Amino acid sequence: KMKLPGQEEFEASSAHENVSAGEVDSGLGSGPSPDGPSVTDSRDLGVQEDPLLFIQLNEMLGWPQALEWRETSSFPVSLLLGVGEMSPITLSTALHHRWVLFEEKLEVGAGRWSAPHVPTVTLASLQKLRSLLAEGLVLLDCPAQSLLELVEHVTRVEMLSPELRGQLQALLLQRPQHYIQTRDTRPCWGSIHLRKASYNEEAPLKEQHQNPLRQRLPPGAEAGNVLAGELGFLAQPLGAFVRLRDPVVLGPLTEVPLPSRFFCLLLGPPTLAKCYHEMGRAAAVLLSDPQFQWSLRRANNLHDLLAALDTFLEEVTVLPPGRWDPTSRIPPPKCLPSQHKRLLNQTCESKGFAAPRQTLAEDRHLHGPHAPSPELQRTGRLFGGLVQDVRRKASWYPSDFFDALHPQCFSAVLYIYLATITNAITFGGLLGDATNGAQGVLESFLGTAVAGAAFCLMAGQPLTILSSTGPVLVFERLLFSFSRDYSLDYLPFRLWVGIWVATFCLVLVATEASVLVRYFTRFTEEGFCALISLIFIYDAVGKMLNLAQAYPIQRPGSPAYGCLCQYPGPGGNESQWTRTRPKDRDDMLITDLGLINASLLPPPECTRQGGHPHGPGCHTVPDITFFSLLLFLTSFLFAMALKHVKTSRFFPSVVRKVLGDFSSVLAILLGCGLDAFLGLATPKLMVPREFKPTLPGRGWLVSPFGANPWWLSVAAALPALLLSILIFMDQQITAVILNRVEYRLRKGAGFHLDLFCVAMLMLLTSVLGLPWYVSATVISLAHMDSLRRESRACAPGESPSFLGIREQRLTGLVVFILTGVSIFLAPVLKFIPMPVLYGIFLYMGVAALNSIQFMKRVQLLLMPAKHQPDLLLLRHVPLSRVHLFTAIQLSCLGLLWIIKSTPAAIIFPLMLLGLVGIRKALEWIFSPQELVWLDELMPEKERSKPEKGVEPKYPFSDSDGENSELIYQPKAPEINISVN
Amino acid sequence: KMKLPGQEEFEASSAHENVSAGEVDSGLGSGPSPDGPSVTDSRDLGVQEDPLLFIQLNEMLGWPQALEWRETSSFPVSLLLGVGEMSPITLSTALHHRWVLFEEKLEVGAGRWSAPHVPTVTLASLQKLRSLLAEGLVLLDCPAQSLLELVEHVTRVEMLSPELRGQLQALLLQRPQHYIQTRDTRPCWGSIHLRKASYNEEAPLKEQHQNPLRQRLPPGAEAGNVLAGELGFLAQPLGAFVRLRDPVVLGPLTEVPLPSRFFCLLLGPPTLAKCYHEMGRAAAVLLSDPQFQWSLRRANNLHDLLAALDTFLEEVTVLPPGRWDPTSRIPPPKCLPSQHKRLLNQTCESKGFAAPRQTLAEDRHLHGPHAPSPELQRTGRLFGGLVQDVRRKASWYPSDFFDALHPQCFSAVLYIYLATITNAITFGGLLGDATNGAQGVLESFLGTAVAGAAFCLMAGQPLTILSSTGPVLVFERLLFSFSRDYSLDYLPFRLWVGIWVATFCLVLVATEASVLVRYFTRFTEEGFCALISLIFIYDAVGKMLNLAQAYPIQRPGSPAYGCLCQYPGPGGNESQWTRTRPKDRDDMLITDLGLINASLLPPPECTRQGGHPHGPGCHTVPDITFFSLLLFLTSFLFAMALKHVKTSRFFPSVVRKVLGDFSSVLAILLGCGLDAFLGLATPKLMVPREFKPTLPGRGWLVSPFGANPWWLSVAAALPALLLSILIFMDQQITAVILNRVEYRLRKGAGFHLDLFCVAMLMLLTSVLGLPWYVSATVISLAHMDSLRRESRACAPGESPSFLGIREQRLTGLVVFILTGVSIFLAPVLKFIPMPVLYGIFLYMGVAALNSIQFMKRVQLLLMPAKHQPDLLLLRHVPLSRVHLFTAIQLSCLGLLWIIKSTPAAIIFPLMLLGLVGIRKALEWIFSPQELVWLDELMPEKERSKPEKGVEPKYPFSDSDGENSELIYQPKAPEINISVN
Repeated sequence: KMKLPGQEEFEASSAHENVSAGEVDSGLGSGPSPDGPSVTDSRDLGVQEDPLLFIQLNEMLGWPQALEWRETSSFPVSLLLGVGEMSPITLSTALHHRWVLFEEKLEVGAGRWSAPHVPTVTLASLQKLRSLLAEGLVLLDCPAQSLLELVEHVTRVEMLSPELRGQLQALLLQRPQHYIQTRDTRPCWGSIHLRKASYNEEAPLKEQHQNPLRQRLPPGAEAGNVLAGELGFLAQPLGAFVRLRDPVVLGPLTEVPLPSRFFCLLLGPPTLAKCYHEMGRAAAVLLSDPQFQWSLRRANNLHDLLAALDTFLEEVTVLPPGRWDPTSRIPPPKCLPSQHKRLLNQTCESKGFAAPRQTLAEDRHLHGPHAPSPELQRTGRLFGGLVQDVRRKASWYPSDFFDALHPQCFSAVLYIYLATITNAITFGGLLGDATNGAQGVLESFLGTAVAGAAFCLMAGQPLTILSSTGPVLVFERLLFSFSRDYSLDYLPFRLWVGIWVATFCLVLVATEASVLVRYFTRFTEEGFCALISLIFIYDAVGKMLNLAQAYPIQRPGSPAYGCLCQYPGPGGNESQWTRTRPKDRDDMLITDLGLINASLLPPPECTRQGGHPHGPGCHTVPDITFFSLLLFLTSFLFAMALKHVKTSRFFPSVVRKVLGDFSSVLAILLGCGLDAFLGLATPKLMVPREFKPTLPGRGWLVSPFGANPWWLSVAAALPALLLSILIFMDQQITAVILNRVEYRLRKGAGFHLDLFCVAMLMLLTSVLGLPWYVSATVISLAHMDSLRRESRACAPGESPSFLGIREQRLTGLVVFILTGVSIFLAPVLKFIPMPVLYGIFLYMGVAALNSIQFMKRVQLLLMPAKHQPDLLLLRHVPLSRVHLFTAIQLSCLGLLWIIKSTPAAIIFPLMLLGLVGIRKALEWIFSPQELVWLDELMPEKERSKPEKGVEPKYPFSDSDGENSELIYQPKAPEINISVN
Repeated sequence: KMKLPGQEEFEASSAHENVSAGEVDSGLGSGPSPDGPSVTDSRDLGVQEDPLLFIQLNEMLGWPQALEWRETSSFPVSLLLGVGEMSPITLSTALHHRWVLFEEKLEVGAGRWSAPHVPTVTLASLQKLRSLLAEGLVLLDCPAQSLLELVEHVTRVEMLSPELRGQLQALLLQRPQHYIQTRDTRPCWGSIHLRKASYNEEAPLKEQHQNPLRQRLPPGAEAGNVLAGELGFLAQPLGAFVRLRDPVVLGPLTEVPLPSRFFCLLLGPPTLAKCYHEMGRAAAVLLSDPQFQWSLRRANNLHDLLAALDTFLEEVTVLPPGRWDPTSRIPPPKCLPSQHKRLLNQTCESKGFAAPRQTLAEDRHLHGPHAPSPELQRTGRLFGGLVQDVRRKASWYPSDFFDALHPQCFSAVLYIYLATITNAITFGGLLGDATNGAQGVLESFLGTAVAGAAFCLMAGQPLTILSSTGPVLVFERLLFSFSRDYSLDYLPFRLWVGIWVATFCLVLVATEASVLVRYFTRFTEEGFCALISLIFIYDAVGKMLNLAQAYPIQRPGSPAYGCLCQYPGPGGNESQWTRTRPKDRDDMLITDLGLINASLLPPPECTRQGGHPHGPGCHTVPDITFFSLLLFLTSFLFAMALKHVKTSRFFPSVVRKVLGDFSSVLAILLGCGLDAFLGLATPKLMVPREFKPTLPGRGWLVSPFGANPWWLSVAAALPALLLSILIFMDQQITAVILNRVEYRLRKGAGFHLDLFCVAMLMLLTSVLGLPWYVSATVISLAHMDSLRRESRACAPGESPSFLGIREQRLTGLVVFILTGVSIFLAPVLKFIPMPVLYGIFLYMGVAALNSIQFMKRVQLLLMPAKHQPDLLLLRHVPLSRVHLFTAIQLSCLGLLWIIKSTPAAIIFPLMLLGLVGIRKALEWIFSPQELVWLDELMPEKERSKPEKGVEPKYPFSDSDGENSELIYQPKAPEINISVN
């Protein structure tokens, strides 16, 4: 199963055309779809089998306006003319346009290639081209083996006198002027002209080989050459179109030394409107059309050629001249339309070409998007799902280690390691607070390392990163306050809860309850995710405000002036010199010290000298609150800004990626630096100095009963039931998100196996008194994101295509081993100020909240209809219905928040489960069509046939021809939940 | 000269088409151009004279697929069918597309109109339409007076049997189904169907009149109706095109009750590909093309119609199907191409139409962009320019007051008043610092009010707002330190400087030196502006850091603990109880107080009780530094954020505009609120409590000699010379910017008069010891921006067009009167914390810096070539040359900064003048073509004929057909220097 290094780039290039074909149902969101792996091999189009074509337009310049050309070029004329002494004609050929997928134009003035753009031509030039070709020379499968032979073939026409023919041949064999933009040096017009070259020298030049475009074209690419120009000595137009039998490297004719397959010559007497230039562009645009290419490669005669041209013309889109400026450039669309459909159309019209594999798309339609994926099909046997999962994953197990052998994995490890310890530190601090030290940073590190590593080794989806999560943290806090209120021994009680949770989860695994995740629609996911994010934000801000109480601000009227050092002076006994007369104990302001022996030494110094500090100012530390607030805001804003750097125009993409990926680490470093620079006594992270539990007086193993009565071990089943629901939802929602079709995972999911692992780890961590762990959405997505495989060799204007994810177990494993080792990082970690961590916490919450569609809809509430973005959603659902849906989600969220804040908080897992019910109830309010756009459809009852009429009208079969609008959903399976 | 209320909207609508024609040379930047006023009346196109056309496509639906229609609509069928009992055919007409300038599509599912987009059609449908029209019925100047008559005319064709004709007529007279989006209520399908209507009821319905689109169409707009559909009972296609002799309101046929001019009927038997729908769209797109409209209104027969269609076809832009998704929507371009050129082309081909006023564009070309505007032509007489200015402005003087009678002026006054006092406060504070109180906030208010009001009453360009400016502030600071170093009496010395400056300026006015402003290119402006901005930023940050020294941060190891209140206690005499033994005077830390009688009262309380505070902690105020920093950052970031709200999608545009315009005021309010909430003793703005000069012991009149020797009054000429250069440059650069062509000022500039006024005010303020004033760029631009006149009635997708600026003297006058009154605002102003003002200062600097093109080029230095925006500049100048130019500007700026910071600082005005010389020297390094794009060309020596070959190739005549690319420069004369 190992892959050769170059293999995936190759895959990518051949998948050029059908990005949108493969992605067409990502528009629907996250519903589990059957054919995850089949996406990769959906290169089902005829055009795919043909090599990619690089087309360039060379223009004949300088006849009869040679002088004009000289002016715009900065080269000496004699050099420009090249082989001047052999040919009496002052002419040069220059490359001004090129096409791979999109058009690039040479900006002669600026000396650089323009940004790639959608090629546009005028209809007039296309029609002129058609008539020129209809009357001209068309050679299909020309056997020419070199440029010389080709030129001889092309000029063998009646209209040319022998003398003219010779002249023309000499012209065509001249070395063209290429503009090669090299990466390092200042771009220059190829030094080709500085060497004297004989015109039959056909070996490609060094400059051609060094052309950076070469690397961006896949192996096997062919070239098409268009030569256009106006020649004074021609009396009538000369058009020729050649398809070479075997592609031939036409020497220096092509900018990149690719073998040429097509050759098009468009010459004629000078005209006023530069129409040969435009015809040349039209020919190149035609050649760059995949459909036309396909037909052209299979054309047998002129008639086929013209028919292909007419088909092209029939399908072109027309922009009216009064509403569109023809010289403006349209940036490449995010997605190209599916060429499959065009081909199908053509074959339906029975032009006689075989339609290659046209059934796949139909398959998709019949299959529907809501058939459960094989991982989620119920087997009906006890532990059947688990067994299947183990069996499926076992076959991939060796490859899970081999596949990690790629440098990308190294940077993924670094990135995720930093994210993991940030998480461990922040959650450790919060848990320590919440449980009064029962779990602290050390437990957090240890637990993360043990549980994470074990999960990576055994789980069904080893890309998952286990972590403490918001909901579990909230539940643990509730559990702790409950046991404190009833004076229970917390850790033993917690152990029993853990044992019961593991048991319940085992039952869920046995009964294959994980297949129910299909009922988790986006509505549920978003409610859950928004709640977590809000908890993050609330906690961060709350912690920050707590600091302001711990270090009170000193207002002008407030106390806290004055601290002096009292000590027995030489001049009297103690009873004499202190006659403190506190008039009012509460108001330290007016403490009258009477006659004392004192100095103004600062408190520590005072104590050392034998005195003792006295006064309200002794215990206050000024400036800390505001400085903490500054650190908090700085780290939050800096992390946010760095995240935006990733999508900005500045810096090379490598730098941007590093800055964006390590935003939180860099923000922490900045905060620590600022803190160290000013040296204020801000509260720092508390880390144990030795390897023992944070709570003094407990060992690593939790005793099963402690001070609790025996029946508590049974009663623990009740909270355990709630926790089980929570764990199940938290774990499985993350699993559903991670296993979305658009991530193109090849090795499949393992919902049952994952839950089993989580249950076992739950048991282990409960016994050891470590925090509980489930899959963490955000950090797992970041993990996957850092392991994206993308095609590198991409044509100008094409965005790199997503190939899949490096699915393996090694990166996670290494991350957790490093986390384990980091327990000994205490001497470094203790320099991290807490406000910085709170800032990062806030950033995580805000970033996660921003990533869900729900927030986009909330924003819509604030936008006037006119300014709303052109979302597909808004095209199909009335705005009021969209707002209603958003409002319902908002009130659900409000309800959850209220429950979380009341004494009934402990039942909030039940309420989360209630979201599924509310979603079901929404079907009474919204029509299936609306729900398709707002959320997604819930699967019908298992194995029930879809009833007639009930089946919602699926938006793909919308009568309005809007199929292809779907491609305006984000094309790439972008992992857009942001990363901590 | 007063305008009627509706007049400008009318102008706007008729100027629809030629925005780009008028704006075409704004691409070149800010060079003074000759025909400022002529821009307004460049409505020189034939198409302009025709009314705007609103086109809608009604579709015949429901035959034979009536059931299908019912499904997608949520209305009961019986209502849908309307006049069901009269007609046996279940058919309804529904409006699905409409066009004014751009296409809007009805999103049936969402029940709203799509965002306007560039209409696209397939070539095939255009061609089908052409053949249908060629065979169909074409009625030009049809005399029908009602829908009934029209329908009778249209159905009078041979192919229809009388029975069929009756059926068709009944159909066509049916009430169509409109979708009217009302602004307030939930959009609904017009309640038209709820009333039973007879089919010849032709009065437009209430819903039609209430259609909000009505308000967006200019008076005189006409309608074009396209009816397309597939009818089962038709055996062959039926195409009809009607131009009505007199536009007729066709009852409820049109969504908006406009008189219809064109009517197009495209019916036929059902086809597979919905081709009548597409043909209908094609017909509507055709009709919406201004060129086609123009021809159509003048067509005499079918041949003319088809010829116009062919002309259209020849000019269309074609998008290849393989690289473009035909269903995607292109947002309206910022600028439409000039229809003038198209018309010219057509008339050149001598189609027989008169070319209306085609000479204007040629005029422009001949005139060139660099001919001096009339205000800047040298008369050759002493004070000739001044006299001309006075004469020109005198004729507008009454209108300068009448033109202010518009509610917009009220909000402009409020906005500029707030900006002016912000400026007066900040500059007052800075000047007070710089001159040690010789000028303070009171002087700043008084001077601003007096000078500003006088300038508004007398100046040539009354939109200018006078203010203290950065360069003058810098110079005054230098002058003060000079006079302090040589123990001069500052104010008398300054008086003489002022007298000399006024004299020199008078000489400049007399010699018409202001015509030299033509040599101030963007290079000079940008150098000047960047310097000012950097001074703002530097000062703001510097002031903030000074605070940190005034209120030291209390580090753990630092002193500042302890302050106690010593007072004579009852138990001993003073010499006995204080035995203070300072071991080390510098180190307050270890002050030993010995035996004392003390309390811990805070310092003020202590003093009141007769003791005195003692100790290092008595004079420190903790928390102030960081809180100030927080205030500083908060006000800066809040102002920046509010500025961005203006261009965001959120909130209605009124709210956005208010938030954006008052960003600095709101930021100040927020800062004050925060400060008041916490009640810390932050440094506040110092305002005098009574109306007398800030410096104690001076009257309002400065004595001419004071303590200075008599010869100093002569020596003052030397610094005055430098200051004159500075004043001249600062004043005139601002004047050049304010009088740019793109602002379409009608009343002309007054460079000489302005300078004269500044000189006289210089004298006045010197005598009174008030600050010196010149025009302030940023605030004046804000003033103009708040007085923009824009067309309100704009078609969907069209951005409001800029009509000009309300040029008057009243707003400025009122602003300065209010500023004068604000001297008595002291009780309010004293609550403003200084850090907030520093934050606003920083914001002003950053915003001004961001607004110049120079900064965009500096940003290019950081961008990889691939990610650079597609600037016109970069298309025509090699990147390395762009970077070289930027680097030269950067080093000039660095040099200026260094000079400003050294003892030679006082000569920095000379160096600013040197910028003009450096710019001249750049002509040795850069070619004229490059300078056209990077900067602008300097005018040739006056009256010298342009020499052959030296004249740079002007980019408009670029051979590459890129004329219209110019429109991709920002079209609107956006005033994009941000506002304080």
